[in-house]
Amino acid sequence: MAMEDWKQFLVALCAAAAAGVVSIIFVLRWVLHYKEGLAWDGGLAEFNWHPVLIVTGFIFLQGIAIIVYRLPWTWKCSKLVMKFIHAGLNLLAFILAVISMVAVFDFHNAAKIPNMYSLHSWLGLIAVILYCLQLVLGVVLYLIPITPVSWRAAFMPIHVFSGLLLFGSVIAVALMGITEKLIFGLSNPKYKDSPPEAIFVNVLGLLLVVFGALILWIATRTSWKRPSDQILHTRHTNGGGEDDSKVGPAMSQLSDGSDAETCGDIRRRSNKLEDQAD
Amino acid sequence: MAMEDWKQFLVALCAAAAAGVVSIIFVLRWVLHYKEGLAWDGGLAEFNWHPVLIVTGFIFLQGIAIIVYRLPWTWKCSKLVMKFIHAGLNLLAFILAVISMVAVFDFHNAAKIPNMYSLHSWLGLIAVILYCLQLVLGVVLYLIPITPVSWRAAFMPIHVFSGLLLFGSVIAVALMGITEKLIFGLSNPKYKDSPPEAIFVNVLGLLLVVFGALILWIATRTSWKRPSDQILHTRHTNGGGEDDSKVGPAMSQLSDGSDAETCGDIRRRSNKLEDQAD
Repeated sequence: MAMEDWKQFLVALCAAAAAGVVSIIFVLRWVLHYKEGLAWDGGLAEFNWHPVLIVTGFIFLQGIAIIVYRLPWTWKCSKLVMKFIHAGLNLLAFILAVISMVAVFDFHNAAKIPNMYSLHSWLGLIAVILYCLQLVLGVVLYLIPITPVSWRAAFMPIHVFSGLLLFGSVIAVALMGITEKLIFGLSNPKYKDSPPEAIFVNVLGLLLVVFGALILWIATRTSWKRPSDQILHTRHTNGGGEDDSKVGPAMSQLSDGSDAETCGDIRRRSNKLEDQAD
Repeated sequence: MAMEDWKQFLVALCAAAAAGVVSIIFVLRWVLHYKEGLAWDGGLAEFNWHPVLIVTGFIFLQGIAIIVYRLPWTWKCSKLVMKFIHAGLNLLAFILAVISMVAVFDFHNAAKIPNMYSLHSWLGLIAVILYCLQLVLGVVLYLIPITPVSWRAAFMPIHVFSGLLLFGSVIAVALMGITEKLIFGLSNPKYKDSPPEAIFVNVLGLLLVVFGALILWIATRTSWKRPSDQILHTRHTNGGGEDDSKVGPAMSQLSDGSDAETCGDIRRRSNKLEDQAD
């Protein structure tokens, strides 16, 4: 990665990490300071695990899982190790999302509130089911050694697109959940009277959007992509420090099958070319 | 575009158009059948212009504006004409979004409901302001002839990314708006009792997500990209029907500067290559 690229990557990564960590602090302060705290008692304190686990697990961990291949200091690790980290973080995010849903169902059942009536609940359940499907298909295709390479390549654009779409959708569903909770949870003063809690949690919503935007930006810059193992090997055998421009053109034909990712190597070789842009 | 690609494109386009048109029918039926209809009287019927104009303008028209370059039957038109159509549709979407906001402010002021207290209103206003900025920057950079080509190229990845991010965000904000309206607008039976209106509008929310996903899919497939004018010209002077593989490698260096778009031509030339995908 060129120095200029490296600096821009670090700025984006630090900003994303900051937005993510501050979001987690905000959601914890929301439930611990403004709400009933955390417990597993069928009451409101059990419900509060829902936003906490969604923000820390289903949003923050999923975001990190998405960009984990892009961290340059992991490029020395084998692709297989990185795949296990990617899958492991996603599995952990999925488990936390499921626990967070159990908390809501428990609370609803104890309080005799109907389940699954809102658009938030519909989209949230669909997102969790599709996320599970994405996880299973990802493991079958990319972690089981016997899966044909042609299948892996053919499915990669769908895997990348649906991963990013699910990530964005989960944040959208979280924003709907925040809206519901602020309307139902604030009574005197109400949400429309803008008490401190309302402002505070609205800011949490903004932070989640900023975190999501930064993760999507990092995940879609082809010049920040992990180089193919062939390029890393070539660099190593040439003593390191080789520019990608010295790697033969055949390298440009190696990719992980993603539309967006296909051209990373070519892009790196031609990044000084004036573009058409008309 | 290869025949197989062409069929897949048509399926995606028809599905997106169907989801979009059905969404418009749904929002019209919502306000005309379930709610107070449409009027400009400061009351609920004026508020109803808000969802109608957001779905038809800020979501449907914006979605069409995003993929308008990808319609193969427009590839005969000059790039400049297509840019005017792209900018014109976005401008229309922006105007309708502003009118839809005026309707809400009018209604709130008449009913003495505070403005701008909810996360929906914060994110919605931010989206409209950023959309306006995107529109102004887009015109300055890509429609004013004196703008340096290097600026156009440098800004294109940001233009593409922020355009798609804004489109997704607008849909997310609409889902939050639906949530608010169903909670506030349904009293006996309430939203949690799942009356027919609640189910109907939840389905509208699902349709908007499907529309958004399909537009984003179409907009991010590099093999469905409008070929560069040079390639179209080469095809024409060679009597048409030329495969892109016969276009010299230099074509691969022409692009509109977008990361995702940079490699369209290369991709088309190498689309039979087995990918790494490990």
